[in-house]
Amino acid sequence: MSPTPVSMSDPTAPAGYTWEATSEQVAARYGVPIEQVARFDLNTSPAPPQLALEVLATGRFETGMSEYPPADYRRLTEAAAARYGVPADEILVGAGADEVLDIVAKAYLPAGGTAVIPTPSYAMYRVLTEQRRARVRPVPRLGPSGGYAIDLGLTRTIARGADLLWLCSPNNPTGLAEPEGAIAELLDGLLADAGRDGRVPPVVALDEAYAEFAGTTLLPLRAGYPDLIVIRTMSKAYALAGLRVGFAVAARQTLAVMEPYRPPGSVSTVSVSIATEVLRDATILPIAIERVAAERARLETGLGAAGWVAHPSVTNFLLVPYGSPERAAAVAEAMLRRGLVPRTFPASHPLADHLRLTVRSTDEDDRLIAAAAEIEAELGEAGR
Amino acid sequence: MSPTPVSMSDPTAPAGYTWEATSEQVAARYGVPIEQVARFDLNTSPAPPQLALEVLATGRFETGMSEYPPADYRRLTEAAAARYGVPADEILVGAGADEVLDIVAKAYLPAGGTAVIPTPSYAMYRVLTEQRRARVRPVPRLGPSGGYAIDLGLTRTIARGADLLWLCSPNNPTGLAEPEGAIAELLDGLLADAGRDGRVPPVVALDEAYAEFAGTTLLPLRAGYPDLIVIRTMSKAYALAGLRVGFAVAARQTLAVMEPYRPPGSVSTVSVSIATEVLRDATILPIAIERVAAERARLETGLGAAGWVAHPSVTNFLLVPYGSPERAAAVAEAMLRRGLVPRTFPASHPLADHLRLTVRSTDEDDRLIAAAAEIEAELGEAGR
Repeated sequence: MSPTPVSMSDPTAPAGYTWEATSEQVAARYGVPIEQVARFDLNTSPAPPQLALEVLATGRFETGMSEYPPADYRRLTEAAAARYGVPADEILVGAGADEVLDIVAKAYLPAGGTAVIPTPSYAMYRVLTEQRRARVRPVPRLGPSGGYAIDLGLTRTIARGADLLWLCSPNNPTGLAEPEGAIAELLDGLLADAGRDGRVPPVVALDEAYAEFAGTTLLPLRAGYPDLIVIRTMSKAYALAGLRVGFAVAARQTLAVMEPYRPPGSVSTVSVSIATEVLRDATILPIAIERVAAERARLETGLGAAGWVAHPSVTNFLLVPYGSPERAAAVAEAMLRRGLVPRTFPASHPLADHLRLTVRSTDEDDRLIAAAAEIEAELGEAGR
Repeated sequence: MSPTPVSMSDPTAPAGYTWEATSEQVAARYGVPIEQVARFDLNTSPAPPQLALEVLATGRFETGMSEYPPADYRRLTEAAAARYGVPADEILVGAGADEVLDIVAKAYLPAGGTAVIPTPSYAMYRVLTEQRRARVRPVPRLGPSGGYAIDLGLTRTIARGADLLWLCSPNNPTGLAEPEGAIAELLDGLLADAGRDGRVPPVVALDEAYAEFAGTTLLPLRAGYPDLIVIRTMSKAYALAGLRVGFAVAARQTLAVMEPYRPPGSVSTVSVSIATEVLRDATILPIAIERVAAERARLETGLGAAGWVAHPSVTNFLLVPYGSPERAAAVAEAMLRRGLVPRTFPASHPLADHLRLTVRSTDEDDRLIAAAAEIEAELGEAGR
């Protein structure tokens, strides 16, 4: 059986960026009613917080819909600062973490420069690096037995003299945070090397999109490494991916280099007001995190019973190995025929024999668990 | 009297980009209650269309707030294509015209390249050019007696061999569209020069943010000049600046170069659904345009009676000359003390002796007209 691509490729992308198929496209291709399409591929939440719906229903926002959002995002910035426990002048707002990553690349990655990426990781790091006409230096992560952790020694060596180091912890798509102390040790090493070489250390972009699920953050490390930029988002634990709100957290002088690249107001005024209120509410996050943790355990057990044994995860997704790319493709195809959309990896990807599956609602996860048993019965030992 | 800056400068901006002061900042600095601050500086509309409020009130969007917007923006793209009378595959969606301009710069302006800007014009063209580490070649526009039109001959000469030409018609901040046939003539000249020189002609980004007010568009010119990218927005005539929705319209092969630089989903899912419905409704635009035209005439007459004689405008703003930068600064200061925020121009700007004033609601415009008479009486002949 030939593997069916789940993502639509953009043929002209300089970095081979692939768009996720829309639910409409999946429905049309697989003959599934659109309301039965469930997205296990986007690491989003099945429902936004109730407070978001309430703010929306008021129809009143910090500025009206005919006006630009406030150029300084003051209330949103202050709400994020309070939530993350940092000064407001160490926060920069973007239209989702993706725009923040783009601003990092614009500010810190010159054409012809070099960016280091421990791989596999989030695909946008490569895309943004190549868009800047800079060079990607990938560094393979440890294997599954090492929790896909960063290879500290090799990363330190390769990052010597680089402009930028893209980190992601907990890492997407592998699901674990770096071992305690690992990134601190890496940063110390980078500082030591830079001192020895008489040059500035690389800027480190640390994507903490999934940090809330892990209950840990490396925000304090920016005190010892001024060029550490931590990226946070409302898209994952806050369940507000549709609003496009993300943040950079960094030392003042680091943000000052990024600020000129921030567009005057890329975040919708509706998003600004909702995100501000949700950040101010201390009750939302613990409930959301607890729900995901419980549901993740349930999904993991359910899939495990069908032989889909996921790697450990502290996030809202599971990475499941299937033994071969062919088996993974066959499972993906069987899922898609049922309207269940997995995240697949292209043949050239080190995780080509895996699928990434988002922890969704109880109902959707029950469908996936039932499908796993069916699909295993259906496929038998083929392609294992 | 020393001129008071109305905008807050970002001290680190590579391109001297200035942020508009927020209403909060104006209120605090001038001791005006915030509800009395009226924005004559942003070229926004005082109220969104009723349909936008209705769609918002349903609380139902194409994807829920916890999900990413559809990666292909299919319905929004088709609604824009139908409204602009172009094929859907000639439309690219961005988070406001500003993001579209950024994508143009990323796709078509290499580091070390050259972009030509007939000036004065919208400040972002210079900002984005400098962010790309490309060189700005400004070309002075004709003066007020020439309607601030592009100097066709000089622009053609300077654009020879350039990578990108930024055009804006109707031009912001001067208020008129280019004379009929002028841009077509310029494009023909660029093609002829490129043919003679044996190189590709420059990409032309034509910002039509204010085109609906003028009732004309140069969209058909892309047939004869494949590298013409027309930029449209929901922020001006559609009165939805807060939603951040803009478009590029260009030939398929031109958009194909830009598409890899489009972020996966920078437009809020709330914005996607509202913009789609507003574009589908044929009744909204004519009413909005008629209101602005009538109100612009009324404001122009009212200000003229106080001696504030605006240059001709086909847009939702008026450009008013005050005779000297000192007088313009004094008028701005007097306006701000009343909570009325004008768009000022820095001392180095060719329009430093002007203010740009947005056509707002009847009530707000009445306040401005009354203020104009008071301010003239107050200032007398000082600084003229």
